[in-house]
Amino acid sequence: MTHTFPTVQLALKPGFYDLTWGQPDPKLMPVADIQRATEIAMKKYGADSLGYGADAGAGPLLQWLLERISERERPLEHDQIAITGGNSDALDQIAMHFTEPGDTVLVEAPTYHLAVKILRDHQLDIIPIPTDEEGLRVNALQETLTELKHAGKHPKFLYTIPTFHNPTGANLSEARRRGLVKVAAAEHLLIVEDDVYRELGYDAPAPPSLWSIAPDGVVLRMGSFAKSLAPGLRLGWITGKAEHVQRIVNSGLRDSGGGVNHLAAVVIAAFCQEGMFETQTQMLRAKYKERRDALSDALALELPQASFAKPGGGFFIWVNLPDGTDTQVLRARAQEQGIDFLHGGRFFLDGRTTNSLRVAFTLYPPEELQKAAKRLAQVVNS
Amino acid sequence: MTHTFPTVQLALKPGFYDLTWGQPDPKLMPVADIQRATEIAMKKYGADSLGYGADAGAGPLLQWLLERISERERPLEHDQIAITGGNSDALDQIAMHFTEPGDTVLVEAPTYHLAVKILRDHQLDIIPIPTDEEGLRVNALQETLTELKHAGKHPKFLYTIPTFHNPTGANLSEARRRGLVKVAAAEHLLIVEDDVYRELGYDAPAPPSLWSIAPDGVVLRMGSFAKSLAPGLRLGWITGKAEHVQRIVNSGLRDSGGGVNHLAAVVIAAFCQEGMFETQTQMLRAKYKERRDALSDALALELPQASFAKPGGGFFIWVNLPDGTDTQVLRARAQEQGIDFLHGGRFFLDGRTTNSLRVAFTLYPPEELQKAAKRLAQVVNS
Repeated sequence: MTHTFPTVQLALKPGFYDLTWGQPDPKLMPVADIQRATEIAMKKYGADSLGYGADAGAGPLLQWLLERISERERPLEHDQIAITGGNSDALDQIAMHFTEPGDTVLVEAPTYHLAVKILRDHQLDIIPIPTDEEGLRVNALQETLTELKHAGKHPKFLYTIPTFHNPTGANLSEARRRGLVKVAAAEHLLIVEDDVYRELGYDAPAPPSLWSIAPDGVVLRMGSFAKSLAPGLRLGWITGKAEHVQRIVNSGLRDSGGGVNHLAAVVIAAFCQEGMFETQTQMLRAKYKERRDALSDALALELPQASFAKPGGGFFIWVNLPDGTDTQVLRARAQEQGIDFLHGGRFFLDGRTTNSLRVAFTLYPPEELQKAAKRLAQVVNS
Repeated sequence: MTHTFPTVQLALKPGFYDLTWGQPDPKLMPVADIQRATEIAMKKYGADSLGYGADAGAGPLLQWLLERISERERPLEHDQIAITGGNSDALDQIAMHFTEPGDTVLVEAPTYHLAVKILRDHQLDIIPIPTDEEGLRVNALQETLTELKHAGKHPKFLYTIPTFHNPTGANLSEARRRGLVKVAAAEHLLIVEDDVYRELGYDAPAPPSLWSIAPDGVVLRMGSFAKSLAPGLRLGWITGKAEHVQRIVNSGLRDSGGGVNHLAAVVIAAFCQEGMFETQTQMLRAKYKERRDALSDALALELPQASFAKPGGGFFIWVNLPDGTDTQVLRARAQEQGIDFLHGGRFFLDGRTTNSLRVAFTLYPPEELQKAAKRLAQVVNS
């Protein structure tokens, strides 16, 4: 029998509501505009779009990002930014250049489960810091740091998603942002900020990034085009202290292979210069807002026993079912009945039993999400 | 003053012959064809060209590679191949998943200096194995392995460039290929084969890869489109034992971010399916053969005191000047007189003084290479 190689990760089955995927809707991807941007880039940059890219990344894209970020967030020097292959690549490279096997790093509990997989590949000792509805509990972080210090340990960094969190959707409160940055600065703790959902605020723009409010060198911020444009472009950026950014730029990997993912970078540069990024993200915010609202309203209606905070942005709703519910057990039943979600335990290092689950609202239109909520309620109530 | 971000690594100065760069000629890059391939890919794959790529890489490109490699080299199962971000990325990921800091790895002396930089980033203990005009000295490898065994050490892999070597241009002889594979199999030594110049044989096709003649699991072979198509695409592949290949595919990096460099991969798939890869490599072979011949002939004419083996393929000529010449000292004088090369010491771990130098013949047309040889001779003779 011949094996068929899949083209993409995403595989949806008709009639099955799969709310597990943290992926943008393929139907909303700017296929025609990316093709147009490619034509523009090939004309404008010619063979420079196909050569070994500059080590920090393709100049035109760096220039566009530098201007945008300097205007919106914080003035940026040219050596404080570099292109990455998206946030997974950025985190992998940061782990590579800032840690050694056996080192300690901190994450939130719950946190993005696949970031944990990347950190585990680097054989790091990963310690969870609890969160609540306002995000990371800064007091708990301080306690953990103190305990670690007594044990003679200094964590290499804290990986955190303060904005439209995955999986909870929570925004770290303004006060906690300032507190976190203050603790990190005092304790010489590097914060690795996953800022992938920044463009996707549905009620208001995203709060200021930790990077933008922290002293230089406290935060290394990872931004990405994966959610705001298209994940297959595999393009993102980091901003931080020059010495931190250049540690990654000056790697053997880039000296040998040049900047990351160069063709996609010049295509995105053309896309952005033409104003298509603003149009695209505006459209996405409108569409995903409808979907978030539809799923939130339907869950409230169909599952009155559940509690959840309607997220201000991002991709996910974190639903708490009544105490005693085991969402991993529930999930097996759900799958049989044509609906799927990720059970909360997936987002905790210890894989604990929880009454929580994560649903993504990005892949289905509002009317389908309403049906999905109804089906979920049937499973919960059966 | 405003800083300008460069777009690419390559920066040539008019009137200066820079033979240091191991890069393909931008003037020979298939800009129009890549644009055409993008149009075809966007039509054919639509939003699948922009989604998270399958973890092993974009299916259509894997399929094309599998068929081509199975036909030309060795039958290949679907789980024995994966897409990479070029050979620098492949080597970085292999070092990541097959070694820990402090582990021992082996390289050739001389070897590709930036591969060494990647291995050093992984904090590996790197041991050189001498080469001669037939390539890696297999007897010397056997001796080193025996010594290491007595010291209780087992190297995690041997990094080697058996085909159109960088920097020497040498091909590992047929007998040595068989000998190397035999020793590696007997000693449980993983060979990491850098096969980046495979398509660029100018007198005859490249000899069989080590991977194609070795028992399953002995060789992990890294192939790339960087030299045969365009480096900015940042696309390559690995072939090897399923368990070895899947160790990289199953990483947190790919689980989270999907297949490497997905957009470029579907564009190359379209490019290759349309037959443009064969046309492009045929053209490159014709052009680079002329350049290799022009530089070889001119060096023989202008520098009769030098000795070198005319390479059968690849990018480089390795020139030995008379004993006692220090090519690092020579290089400083050469730069002042408008010509540059890499001195041999760059390709040895200990940075030793050598009478050798590496010149690349890919970036200039024949008549310019003749002038470059003349200028080099002036520097040597002055």
